[in-house]
Amino acid sequence: MDAVSVIRAKRDRGELTAHQIDWVVDAYTRGEVADEQMSALAMAILLNGMTEAETGRWTDAMIASGERMDFSGLTRPTADKHSTGGVGDKITLPLAPLVAACGVAVPQLSGRGLGHTGGTLDKLESIPGWRAALSTGEMLGVLESVGAVICAAGDGLAPADRKLYALRDVTGTVESIPLIASSIMSKKIAEGTGALVLDVKVGSGAFMRDLADARELARTMVALGTGHGVRTVALLTDMSAPLGRTAGNALEVRESVEVLAGGGPADVVTLTLALAREMLAAAGADAKDPADALADGSAMDVWRRMITAQGGDPDAALPTARETHTVTAPASGVLTRLDAYAVGVAAWRLGAGRSRKEDPVQAAAGLELHAKPGDPVREGAPLLTLHTDTPERFPYALQALTAAIDIAPEPTAYDRPPIIIDRIDTQDTRTPHTP
Amino acid sequence: MDAVSVIRAKRDRGELTAHQIDWVVDAYTRGEVADEQMSALAMAILLNGMTEAETGRWTDAMIASGERMDFSGLTRPTADKHSTGGVGDKITLPLAPLVAACGVAVPQLSGRGLGHTGGTLDKLESIPGWRAALSTGEMLGVLESVGAVICAAGDGLAPADRKLYALRDVTGTVESIPLIASSIMSKKIAEGTGALVLDVKVGSGAFMRDLADARELARTMVALGTGHGVRTVALLTDMSAPLGRTAGNALEVRESVEVLAGGGPADVVTLTLALAREMLAAAGADAKDPADALADGSAMDVWRRMITAQGGDPDAALPTARETHTVTAPASGVLTRLDAYAVGVAAWRLGAGRSRKEDPVQAAAGLELHAKPGDPVREGAPLLTLHTDTPERFPYALQALTAAIDIAPEPTAYDRPPIIIDRIDTQDTRTPHTP
Repeated sequence: MDAVSVIRAKRDRGELTAHQIDWVVDAYTRGEVADEQMSALAMAILLNGMTEAETGRWTDAMIASGERMDFSGLTRPTADKHSTGGVGDKITLPLAPLVAACGVAVPQLSGRGLGHTGGTLDKLESIPGWRAALSTGEMLGVLESVGAVICAAGDGLAPADRKLYALRDVTGTVESIPLIASSIMSKKIAEGTGALVLDVKVGSGAFMRDLADARELARTMVALGTGHGVRTVALLTDMSAPLGRTAGNALEVRESVEVLAGGGPADVVTLTLALAREMLAAAGADAKDPADALADGSAMDVWRRMITAQGGDPDAALPTARETHTVTAPASGVLTRLDAYAVGVAAWRLGAGRSRKEDPVQAAAGLELHAKPGDPVREGAPLLTLHTDTPERFPYALQALTAAIDIAPEPTAYDRPPIIIDRIDTQDTRTPHTP
Repeated sequence: MDAVSVIRAKRDRGELTAHQIDWVVDAYTRGEVADEQMSALAMAILLNGMTEAETGRWTDAMIASGERMDFSGLTRPTADKHSTGGVGDKITLPLAPLVAACGVAVPQLSGRGLGHTGGTLDKLESIPGWRAALSTGEMLGVLESVGAVICAAGDGLAPADRKLYALRDVTGTVESIPLIASSIMSKKIAEGTGALVLDVKVGSGAFMRDLADARELARTMVALGTGHGVRTVALLTDMSAPLGRTAGNALEVRESVEVLAGGGPADVVTLTLALAREMLAAAGADAKDPADALADGSAMDVWRRMITAQGGDPDAALPTARETHTVTAPASGVLTRLDAYAVGVAAWRLGAGRSRKEDPVQAAAGLELHAKPGDPVREGAPLLTLHTDTPERFPYALQALTAAIDIAPEPTAYDRPPIIIDRIDTQDTRTPHTP
């Protein structure tokens, strides 16, 4: 077996054998297959596709590159959620304690933001004292005692994926549905959750801007999860506008706490409840309605215990930015567009995100949105507030927002897009995959 | 400008701009664009193609990565020949002195064999004392005094191509017509020849097994040469069977000397004369018929002076192999197939070629062919003689030959394919290029 023959097979539109896939993923992880060989293979996969069988085997090989976790010793069933990433997507923060409050354990191994999308760990780290890095023993302890844990994934889980993801990022080979699906699912399957709900974002602020691509990604991931014995369901959800009214780390924690307190923006509440119901159903534990767990304070109670268990102080004041800048509405009418990608880039430039993995983020940087698409706006009234500790960044953030907003004069028939666009379950994955 | 945006542009079937091409080739040569980025781009180019404009600019950028030579100080016009590589292809050896004997200077910068195809420098190095490495001054001196020189290309010529070729070799990205064409032509244009004749091989022993691909490669290279002010013509020639009756280094030198002495196999003589006539016509110097220069000994005279000028002894005995093994005809009839690729692999395994650039070759290893397609054969009579200094290689060479031969019982209507299949001139390149 050699790398060139595997590359040529895929380049010439062949289907890779199980043996070829096992070998190339293992040899790449060990450094026997070089980066320049794997990037050529990744480009050939991106352009020529992989069959469902190849994608499944690729996922298996990435799982086999590392260790697997095991939650079978827990007294409760487990469910996990994964979002493909968006702007203002703080859903994991209220969702994990909410589902735990309804009787299902949530082992949420999360990541950091890169580019214009935020990261769950970056958001939680704005809470004074909170620690993302837990040992496996600490993680299981919090999960057993509190019912929910949000922490960084250990290095031992699917190391092939970590290496390949870093390579794809610099070689223009990220946007391949089989590679995205196997990357996400190898980690989730290795993590050992019993049930998984996928939040596949569609729209300008998402990875997938096109509904057909998002649907294909969802179908591929649901088939992979199901094939590996994980009860998996996907929701396709709107990411044309930011979720909620904030984008940024501490700003999103504040909004999440509002949701746990029974308030918060309608879209965040709707999506949180929908995902919670899917997780509970997938885990076979839907005795309690999650809306009740928000209303009766039990979700907030789990949140407080979860933050405390990881060293955080749930009562501490969150950081606030040194400077703010307000953007006012240029006209009166109805806000018909507030572009998620533009807001994500602006938040990133204000300091909420990082350019390189090793960069720090500003806890307090980000944006507040005073109107959402469909809301009336009045000329001169505040539309957006920008927050940062480094005001020299304001011009760069404002530049990202120049074409982000459309306002139509009233009266306008504006159809607010639904947050939840579609739902993909196992039976939707039976049609043949066309790469 | 960054590598990922260039890769994505080609990945998404865009046409690269001149600025993108200039930047990426230069940045790759300097090491700013990493190997894994260039290999992803090469795979995207292989799968999505390049337009004629892109291929031209890519060639320009590779030329600009190094120095250019200049033969304008010579008293005679120059012409060069390039073969895309085949089995038994010793044509450069008789051709260069033959064309020089007819009044045109031949600056032949040649390479070494890799894989199943032989290399001109490896062949000449079987002549005791002969040196491939000349300084630019030495090269110009031999060219001026003798009229022909065959030597190694200096490191300063198209360094981008050298780096990219080595990368393509290990990443399954060799078989791209725009990349092959720009690789060959960047070196030939930088070399500064006034006229160029391309011998584009087609058939099992060639890089291009398919006539349409070979024609496209020829058209692309003729257009590139013409566009850079080099009078360029291509012949498409047969490589389904080996050229001549030998494959191997010293064996091919011996056969070349036979041709220069007025003998030699018909196919080698035919092709040598055809290429010589094209080179003389392209250089605008067709006063002397090259057949006369073979008959009157003037080509042989240039050969002897050329070998001597580079330290070689044209009268020295050539090395002979320590061991030989004869393969006899398994049946009587007409030989209808003697597969070029199989013979090339057998010669390679006997020691005539190398697996890695740094390996040595055996001067005496190779094969003699006692019959060519179309010849009658008799059961039990010698068909092939294998030569090597390392007889433990015989079984591996014989294995390559197991399906190399077809014999039909007489009487059989066998159409010997013509050596010269087609000729591509500037006017054949006017139809649009479809990648």
